Amino acid sequence: MATQQFTPERYYVTLGNHEPVLRIADGDTVVTSTLDAQGYDAAETRRSEGSNPMTGPFYVEGAEPGDALVVTLDRIEPNREYGWARTIVAPNVLDPEYVYALPPEDDWQFARWRVDTRAETATLVEPADTMLGQLTIPIRPMVGCFGVAPPHSQAISTATSGEYGGNMDYRGFVAGVTVRFPVFETGALFHIGDVHAVQSDGEIGGTGIEISSEVEFSVRVEKNATLSWPWADDPRYILTVGNARPLDQAVQHATTEMLRRLRHQFRLDPASARILMGQCAQYDVGNIYDPAYTMVCKLSKHLLP
Amino acid sequence: MATQQFTPERYYVTLGNHEPVLRIADGDTVVTSTLDAQGYDAAETRRSEGSNPMTGPFYVEGAEPGDALVVTLDRIEPNREYGWARTIVAPNVLDPEYVYALPPEDDWQFARWRVDTRAETATLVEPADTMLGQLTIPIRPMVGCFGVAPPHSQAISTATSGEYGGNMDYRGFVAGVTVRFPVFETGALFHIGDVHAVQSDGEIGGTGIEISSEVEFSVRVEKNATLSWPWADDPRYILTVGNARPLDQAVQHATTEMLRRLRHQFRLDPASARILMGQCAQYDVGNIYDPAYTMVCKLSKHLLP
Amino acid sequence: MATQQFTPERYYVTLGNHEPVLRIADGDTVVTSTLDAQGYDAAETRRSEGSNPMTGPFYVEGAEPGDALVVTLDRIEPNREYGWARTIVAPNVLDPEYVYALPPEDDWQFARWRVDTRAETATLVEPADTMLGQLTIPIRPMVGCFGVAPPHSQAISTATSGEYGGNMDYRGFVAGVTVRFPVFETGALFHIGDVHAVQSDGEIGGTGIEISSEVEFSVRVEKNATLSWPWADDPRYILTVGNARPLDQAVQHATTEMLRRLRHQFRLDPASARILMGQCAQYDVGNIYDPAYTMVCKLSKHLLP
Amino acid sequence: MATQQFTPERYYVTLGNHEPVLRIADGDTVVTSTLDAQGYDAAETRRSEGSNPMTGPFYVEGAEPGDALVVTLDRIEPNREYGWARTIVAPNVLDPEYVYALPPEDDWQFARWRVDTRAETATLVEPADTMLGQLTIPIRPMVGCFGVAPPHSQAISTATSGEYGGNMDYRGFVAGVTVRFPVFETGALFHIGDVHAVQSDGEIGGTGIEISSEVEFSVRVEKNATLSWPWADDPRYILTVGNARPLDQAVQHATTEMLRRLRHQFRLDPASARILMGQCAQYDVGNIYDPAYTMVCKLSKHLLP
Repeated sequence: MATQQFTPERYYVTLGNHEPVLRIADGDTVVTSTLDAQGYDAAETRRSEGSNPMTGPFYVEGAEPGDALVVTLDRIEPNREYGWARTIVAPNVLDPEYVYALPPEDDWQFARWRVDTRAETATLVEPADTMLGQLTIPIRPMVGCFGVAPPHSQAISTATSGEYGGNMDYRGFVAGVTVRFPVFETGALFHIGDVHAVQSDGEIGGTGIEISSEVEFSVRVEKNATLSWPWADDPRYILTVGNARPLDQAVQHATTEMLRRLRHQFRLDPASARILMGQCAQYDVGNIYDPAYTMVCKLSKHLLP
Repeated sequence: MATQQFTPERYYVTLGNHEPVLRIADGDTVVTSTLDAQGYDAAETRRSEGSNPMTGPFYVEGAEPGDALVVTLDRIEPNREYGWARTIVAPNVLDPEYVYALPPEDDWQFARWRVDTRAETATLVEPADTMLGQLTIPIRPMVGCFGVAPPHSQAISTATSGEYGGNMDYRGFVAGVTVRFPVFETGALFHIGDVHAVQSDGEIGGTGIEISSEVEFSVRVEKNATLSWPWADDPRYILTVGNARPLDQAVQHATTEMLRRLRHQFRLDPASARILMGQCAQYDVGNIYDPAYTMVCKLSKHLLP
Repeated sequence: MATQQFTPERYYVTLGNHEPVLRIADGDTVVTSTLDAQGYDAAETRRSEGSNPMTGPFYVEGAEPGDALVVTLDRIEPNREYGWARTIVAPNVLDPEYVYALPPEDDWQFARWRVDTRAETATLVEPADTMLGQLTIPIRPMVGCFGVAPPHSQAISTATSGEYGGNMDYRGFVAGVTVRFPVFETGALFHIGDVHAVQSDGEIGGTGIEISSEVEFSVRVEKNATLSWPWADDPRYILTVGNARPLDQAVQHATTEMLRRLRHQFRLDPASARILMGQCAQYDVGNIYDPAYTMVCKLSKHLLP
Repeated sequence: MATQQFTPERYYVTLGNHEPVLRIADGDTVVTSTLDAQGYDAAETRRSEGSNPMTGPFYVEGAEPGDALVVTLDRIEPNREYGWARTIVAPNVLDPEYVYALPPEDDWQFARWRVDTRAETATLVEPADTMLGQLTIPIRPMVGCFGVAPPHSQAISTATSGEYGGNMDYRGFVAGVTVRFPVFETGALFHIGDVHAVQSDGEIGGTGIEISSEVEFSVRVEKNATLSWPWADDPRYILTVGNARPLDQAVQHATTEMLRRLRHQFRLDPASARILMGQCAQYDVGNIYDPAYTMVCKLSKHLLP
């Protein structure tokens, strides 16, 4: 149950069976930092190629294929003043005929936002000439990309996601949330990075407000787990995560996994699970921008035995 | 600005250019009732075939193609004690391999819920033998299917939806919400029905808690409107609605329409609209069960000029 | 078994339960004409609004809901020299990022093709300034939109399609093909129009070479049929048709219907049907442009008992 | 321009930046063998885990990122008498409601087919009790999975596919076809395996007739190529390949790539390319079973300058 400080020196742009940067024990807490999506650190110095360079992987002692790695996001704290964002709405979330009629020229600008972690706000600094002026919005720092090494010794780009987690870009992955990942490799090999100060549902801008960050997380190993896709818990809900294209298939993964979770974790009979889901299930759109989209199925904890 | 009491005598299972049941003026309020999705009334007597028989259409004086019909849902009050629901989770929201492995036999039951409109709860009465027991959940009565006559003199089943509204099955369409529909026929021809005491996001049970209801709504005509898809306002958000399959296309319609709404109603420049959407847009899943799915794009009113 | 000459005077832009233009008997053949997709006739005079005005509906005596209407396309012969086409590739079949980068300006031209029905060719006349010059391609005249009145007294735009047929835009619907439609209304109410001299798979140009035409077809009523979606036969294949968005769902409809057809028409046991389909099924892309896409599942007649 | 005999000793179940098994020169021909999809060799001895173990990778001298690797499939010859296949129709290509109603029990059998490479037929041996009896069908041996190392040092499962090729399961990849892959790693790192004696369009059985095989292929390096997705040539057509889910996105990739190919390889002006595609493009369904589906866009060589 130690707390380990870790200063990263190299970064990966795939989640895979890479050489671990640190071995940690079941129950440990790690305090470390992440680069922004293009590889820039707290000093706005480029430390890695993009996109979404990962801190890690962390080898968790005792984690074996078939277990779950339980990760609690204890703290997510941007460590510099400015974040950046694209200024588009992603063409894949717009009607094709509308995209057709758009002028192509002005899309590749970037916005610069000043992030005040104490006030929990972000203020638009550039571009300075829009009707938004210096718009200030609330922030809610979240982890865009985290997870374990995927199965079959694959190494998969941090642009995308799967059963192992990855670039889910779900704005619900904030401090205080616990996420369980299915373990595919000995040691689990946990990777983390790509913090956003805030983002829309769906990450439809193609980015959130991308920023380097300090992160603190704790790990626990759950032996012989039964999950196929990530499970999460926040203070009010249980959540299951599906990552796929199209959105319909992400819905299928998340919904099926919630039925499995109700059965395996909460021992609900199938009819109960279906009746409960049929009137009470909720969905959050994680991302509809990355190669795999993310949908989250949720149930209020009040409803559960 | 009259209030008109209307007792329906016949019902339609399409939204179309039907003989109006009542002519009302711009500004009028109508108090009437709706059948449940299978055509049963407050006395649990079958009054129409299903599914989703409509009360109406109401001819609104002064409404012309190119205008918007602005409908405020003033009151939605179930008028009997029991509602029913299917007890499935719809196979289209489950992984195909999971559906494959399901036992087919027990899916076509119905659940019976006792609805207490004063306590704002529903209590499961049948089946009585599940682990849920007599589960009580909060209700939030909503209109499943409403809208105007579709374009080109079409008559379209109340099973589905389109630019004209229809069976959107969005649980945000509760009392206090205002919805604008594009008008395609002279008189707009407004239809309403299919009240649910409550439903999940996505109506993944294939039904909500289906119940007959009293409804009260007010209409207003907005001349020369610019909407292509329904717009809505609730106390906290502006909303745009996209109806289509797959979910990705419903997202495209709703998102494109929000960009149009920001431009036409709020006069935002395109860059402002994109930047705002990119960090602040939200989505609600309306339904992922009907022939056309429904996605809702939302923006907090706090963010708007 | 009469042959009826019919000269249309009015046209519908929906398939629906309209007043029949002619009553015909089981076994009759009809010789008539169709307008092009924008309503122009053999003399290039506009006779109807678009899109896809229908000749008909024809009331077929003896056809009742639950039967099949068996339509043989005996002859499809363009009746003027010039056809037109859009010059786009539809944005929905292109990568959104590619559409984003396209110049929007030059897309709304039309091409003009000279159609030589004797030589069975079309020659590009306008635009005259492309590298294609006066390209000559083979033609294969086909019916874009035909079918029966849809269920539940719906009237549905000829832009789209469903179980009842409609705007399937499949280039396999040429002379010599027989198509069975499920009957939903007494008299079946058969509509036909929208002939193309030729089109790509998928109708990805948004149109084929659109042209007015003479058409000759014969009808037969099959009592107590078992089809849910259109079935077709050409000289070499049996075919089933699925109409839906997205393409995945059109595949599902066509494939499921082929399994049903193998069972009901050919009395194959389920394992045989699956094994045969697993190695021998073929697919044609009908259209991927209209509101509902069309996929065709095929099996060679050589493989069938 | 040497011909190299290569006997594989180890196999990979990912396409990745693995240690090459052989270095070959631009212009060389390789004669080697492949295991079946579950790792069984010519003697029906298991030599690797599944699925789709790859022979290779072959390092091609002179191939650099940005080039194309041009692979000609010279010969594909099953090297044993029996192949196997699943006996399902994949649930993802069936209507969800239909899957719901299917009996789950009898799906996990395998069929055994006797393959006669001289007669070019396969004959069903097991199950022996279906109405098909000893059905004999024509074979057309093809390569299911082949390609180069993917970008960003990824290692991606041979279950799926991408820009780099992979498990495309397209029945058009037969002897005589040439395929160009974009090169992402120095040496290209070509992998090949997963031969089918035959399969349906879409590989809707979940497998083709899976069999070990001798394969002979030749490689050529094309410097500074312009392709984003695989291009192919067969005797009659030029082809472009898109791999993605859903099928709509695979269509988008293949169609966009064909427009690019017409521009870059054939120097067609954009209007010509669009007009040609709009009337003459064809599509083949590669697979609609694997995690990424495959669509092929084709144009007849007769139409090209």
